[in-house]
Amino acid sequence: MNPLLITGSIALDSVKTPIEEHHDMLGGSASYAAVAASFFTPVNLVGIVGSDFPPAYRDLYRHYNIDLAGLEVADGKTFRWSGEYEWDLNNRRTLSIALNVFETFEPKLPLPYRDTPYVFLANIAPALQLHVLAQVSAPRFIVADTMDLWIETTRDDLMTLLPKIDCLVLNDSETREFTRETSLVKGARKILDWGPKYVVVKKGEHGCLLFGRDLFFSAPAYPLEDIHDPTGAGDCFAGAMAGYLAKEDRVDHDTLRRAVIYGSALASFNVEAFSLGRLQTLTPQDIEERYRLFKQMSHFEAT
Amino acid sequence: MNPLLITGSIALDSVKTPIEEHHDMLGGSASYAAVAASFFTPVNLVGIVGSDFPPAYRDLYRHYNIDLAGLEVADGKTFRWSGEYEWDLNNRRTLSIALNVFETFEPKLPLPYRDTPYVFLANIAPALQLHVLAQVSAPRFIVADTMDLWIETTRDDLMTLLPKIDCLVLNDSETREFTRETSLVKGARKILDWGPKYVVVKKGEHGCLLFGRDLFFSAPAYPLEDIHDPTGAGDCFAGAMAGYLAKEDRVDHDTLRRAVIYGSALASFNVEAFSLGRLQTLTPQDIEERYRLFKQMSHFEAT
Repeated sequence: MNPLLITGSIALDSVKTPIEEHHDMLGGSASYAAVAASFFTPVNLVGIVGSDFPPAYRDLYRHYNIDLAGLEVADGKTFRWSGEYEWDLNNRRTLSIALNVFETFEPKLPLPYRDTPYVFLANIAPALQLHVLAQVSAPRFIVADTMDLWIETTRDDLMTLLPKIDCLVLNDSETREFTRETSLVKGARKILDWGPKYVVVKKGEHGCLLFGRDLFFSAPAYPLEDIHDPTGAGDCFAGAMAGYLAKEDRVDHDTLRRAVIYGSALASFNVEAFSLGRLQTLTPQDIEERYRLFKQMSHFEAT
Repeated sequence: MNPLLITGSIALDSVKTPIEEHHDMLGGSASYAAVAASFFTPVNLVGIVGSDFPPAYRDLYRHYNIDLAGLEVADGKTFRWSGEYEWDLNNRRTLSIALNVFETFEPKLPLPYRDTPYVFLANIAPALQLHVLAQVSAPRFIVADTMDLWIETTRDDLMTLLPKIDCLVLNDSETREFTRETSLVKGARKILDWGPKYVVVKKGEHGCLLFGRDLFFSAPAYPLEDIHDPTGAGDCFAGAMAGYLAKEDRVDHDTLRRAVIYGSALASFNVEAFSLGRLQTLTPQDIEERYRLFKQMSHFEAT
């Protein structure tokens, strides 16, 4: 099986919702993406933690067949994030952020990682994404995630990244902010003009849209009645999507459509519990069953 | 072919967008619904206009095989509405509204209309919807539309209507307001508990959701780059949906799913021009072609 290289943030998250509150849970874009991807393919993780990183979380990665040769342990504290969700869980407020060891992170890929064929650059500063990418010798398909912070503060780096990747993943409000287009269709086409072959626009409870030069695919969202913690849903989506592509070792349109559905399925599981709680009880059968439900809920007959 | 009975408002609309402005165009929920439905089945129209109603609009109805025996012409002026859209066309502001002949409207169904098998109660006061419904002898399937105004001002009438209809159509913000549930899934289930067998939640650019006791269907929206006038899109959606059900004379789940796609297709055409402009150039071939595009953009393979 083709391994997937994942880089991104590794964090200790404290999350508060109107119902629950948990501290120092395993979080960060790379953690969510790596565990979600691991259901499809082996993962090579590139990231940094501090000396306070709990051994239990290291064991959790290992349990999911995530290779930790690229996990740097630095003197200092692990990156910490804390946030609070409003009652409807749609609006999130960052309460505190401490970059800690991330401030001086210069990712160095272990030699065996350098020819990993599939790459997912999870949400992290575009300069770090570029730094990792420069060390990969001949990638077959590169997916990158981003967020409003980088669109606002490091737009030039992001524009440098775009022609080097195959697929950009971002959400609807970020698409509008990035492209200054109200229409997501126009916005996505603008991003395609900036370099990548594909753009995935995540719309939360409204599903997501996959755009290519001659491809448009609209994926539904799973109808969840109770969301416990939305943190990491987007990371799980993109990690699973990239993991499925690596597993299939194909990036034709049919495979991309299926990858988007698997991504949506993993994201829908992830929000059912705090942190990586739901993914830790997840089975391959659960995933296949949910994929079938996605098929069922979007199926209609041709004329 | 089974005719479809449609009641609702008939208006002379004045609409302003940042780009265009038009006055006294044919509008109203029943007008949009009737023309959209006419692509599938003959329509029996129940409504009221004033003595100032332009003969050209009467001819337009006739051109679409819309029966006007139920169109009352009263002394006075036709209902008038004027509204303005903001630059992104998502927010609408009502500039003026004049009920005119609608103030004293008491719909009376012509005798041949009373056994119409399929009924669409387009957006109008629930008391009028109930009044029309009471005159239909043995309807097979009744679809009703509503809006925030009735949810806020005539909630009791709306609650009386719900157990008498088969399918309620409303948009996402109305669903939340009506049910006081943030989750559309929970909101739709609550409405099902209040009476109808099916609920369709329209989400504009995000498509729509069809809920039944053992049915969930998520339909995509057509990716429009340029919207000229969103007025009447919801009316076209529901009119075409009901028209297709009448034509097929079946309301099983597969037919309902197809009906929702045909509704989405007609709505997507309608916003491409002002008033009923786009529907007036529309051909059955255009509709079938767009249905195929809906299929293509939402298709993915089973596992």
